[in-house]
Amino acid sequence: MTHERVIQMNTSQGSYDIHIAPNALERSKEYFDQLGSTIVISDEHVYPLYGHLLKSPHRFVIPPGEESKTMDTVMEIVNHMLSCGLGRDTTIIALGGGVVGDVAGFVASIYMRGVPYIQIPTTLVAQVDSSVGGKTAVNTGVGKNTVGTFWQPQKVIIDPTTLRSLPRRDVVSGVAEVVKYGVIYDAGFFQYLDTHMEDILSADIDVLCEVIERCCMIKAEVVDQDEKEHGIRKILNFGHTVGHALESLTHYQEYTHGEAVLVGMILETRLARVLGLIDERCSQEVHSVLRRLGIDESIARHSTAALIEHMTHDKKNRNEQISFILPMGVGDVEEFMFDPEELWGYWNEVAGVGAHKVIKHPALVNRPMRRRSTG
Amino acid sequence: MTHERVIQMNTSQGSYDIHIAPNALERSKEYFDQLGSTIVISDEHVYPLYGHLLKSPHRFVIPPGEESKTMDTVMEIVNHMLSCGLGRDTTIIALGGGVVGDVAGFVASIYMRGVPYIQIPTTLVAQVDSSVGGKTAVNTGVGKNTVGTFWQPQKVIIDPTTLRSLPRRDVVSGVAEVVKYGVIYDAGFFQYLDTHMEDILSADIDVLCEVIERCCMIKAEVVDQDEKEHGIRKILNFGHTVGHALESLTHYQEYTHGEAVLVGMILETRLARVLGLIDERCSQEVHSVLRRLGIDESIARHSTAALIEHMTHDKKNRNEQISFILPMGVGDVEEFMFDPEELWGYWNEVAGVGAHKVIKHPALVNRPMRRRSTG
Repeated sequence: MTHERVIQMNTSQGSYDIHIAPNALERSKEYFDQLGSTIVISDEHVYPLYGHLLKSPHRFVIPPGEESKTMDTVMEIVNHMLSCGLGRDTTIIALGGGVVGDVAGFVASIYMRGVPYIQIPTTLVAQVDSSVGGKTAVNTGVGKNTVGTFWQPQKVIIDPTTLRSLPRRDVVSGVAEVVKYGVIYDAGFFQYLDTHMEDILSADIDVLCEVIERCCMIKAEVVDQDEKEHGIRKILNFGHTVGHALESLTHYQEYTHGEAVLVGMILETRLARVLGLIDERCSQEVHSVLRRLGIDESIARHSTAALIEHMTHDKKNRNEQISFILPMGVGDVEEFMFDPEELWGYWNEVAGVGAHKVIKHPALVNRPMRRRSTG
Repeated sequence: MTHERVIQMNTSQGSYDIHIAPNALERSKEYFDQLGSTIVISDEHVYPLYGHLLKSPHRFVIPPGEESKTMDTVMEIVNHMLSCGLGRDTTIIALGGGVVGDVAGFVASIYMRGVPYIQIPTTLVAQVDSSVGGKTAVNTGVGKNTVGTFWQPQKVIIDPTTLRSLPRRDVVSGVAEVVKYGVIYDAGFFQYLDTHMEDILSADIDVLCEVIERCCMIKAEVVDQDEKEHGIRKILNFGHTVGHALESLTHYQEYTHGEAVLVGMILETRLARVLGLIDERCSQEVHSVLRRLGIDESIARHSTAALIEHMTHDKKNRNEQISFILPMGVGDVEEFMFDPEELWGYWNEVAGVGAHKVIKHPALVNRPMRRRSTG
């Protein structure tokens, strides 16, 4: 049996552990037994697979998919919990992917002004990203994650064997977020991914444990420095400015979150190249790893006008400027702000096919966000 | 011009000031000018009176009254803000009574995972209680304040002259919360209220400034010790176990919050007497001040069964026991937990008219919650 890896997460709401191990759910039996009043929030795909392991008398099972990530779902859960007489001492257990985690975490943050919750992510994207760090959210008609809170879980329990039942599309979506950690923070990890991509895609458990641990460590380091995303935490948004716009303009129907971020990373890397922030070799290196996931930017044929219109609603924007996290090299990114008109000028070059003209703009606002020195 | 009084509030989300002064709104002109992007949330009664002083380009005006305190209102405001393109750097200004403050504060806590807000309370109950301390909430069909957050404002601006336009019913409701501070924390303040009750009810500005300052100081002291209501902050719930049940069983139609708390304090004081926690003289002293507000418990003719049923849904309950804050003397209270059946036994005595038999129960769970020693 592979050893358990434990990562400590430090936040303003207290510290908690992220446990990573094959069969972590069975290993946590005693922990669940002492929790007191609980309710499991899960979806119709995941609950039948693992729900029985949690032995909770209460559950609320939502339809799978981004369509469930609404305030209507939140209030259905709240009303169900109230009708069950569940009090402030109830622990919510979020069992599922990113949608379940975001919705259940949001419910936990507002139910009777806040109750504890536990994250048990069962998709790769949730295991390496959304279950860790305390961001909760639902979508509105106007935009993704436009309503939410920062509410930290009591514990995160990650069992990589749950990934074996995932469709390949969901695995690829998760790997997109994994590659993101390499590009934004850790060139060595990026190389590791380049070497082990086939093992990851075929769900090799040892490699997955290693990959998930590295991703969670990076996220814990980043969140420890900047829990509320005033500075360095923004680097986690690489690929997300374009990604969120793609999801929003297709009404969350066409791309998974990971696919949208993957295309986002390809186009944002190209924007960095067009701006002369990175050289052609670095650009090719990032593109080549991303393309090995079997998806490229050609799936995103949307008008520049529609893309930029949706980017102007991004909640990361400030002073009506659009925020981008762009690579300065593998393992190193910075934030840049663009007026919509200015971005339009670059985008024709970005969206074009073939080699790209480099347009180095002298007035780029460059906000340094280097990681905190550990020396 | 009366001097401005400033009280500092210390919380885990930072410190902020409570400003109390006649014409505090006009005095704050420069402060408003430097806020950047803002939106005023107010109600149809209050916005026409003071809205123009805030010079915000955006506003959302809700119908007055508890019926507006719902998630539907919250999402209307959120969608309006999104459609105006308001970003994370927007400051929400809550201008109005407790409903406006609770709703606007809740919106601030969830809009794009949290934006800053300012409280400008215009009713007495909001000036001495709900605007201070960062509790936000909306009601659901099942209970009052069952959904909400702890989200601290950037500043609280209190202008007692706004109380001159209040109907007497709203003034009385506010005075109920004022008397509460005397009973739970400060016997000297209780005596002051006894002496100055007529000045308060006739809206004497100097006396109101003094009263609001004392109440806010007590609340700041209590919240400083226990922001999330795990211990001493619970004393602020004196009168609220019965009060919330009265509001809930009449669907928030019959009593104002203050009236319900007033009746709650009378009945809970009588429960303390029936249990032998206080002597007859102390009981009479509290009753006599409360009755000078022109309301007594005779307005609340509900069956014991209905009352206790609604108390069993109170979110302060633990382990299916009902929580009460009961006086041990003027200026001193403690929490007691009751099984519903046990409470029923006492309640016939509490609800009866005339002198009360004292039933001292030996097994009362007495959880000490004395204030932190300042010596």
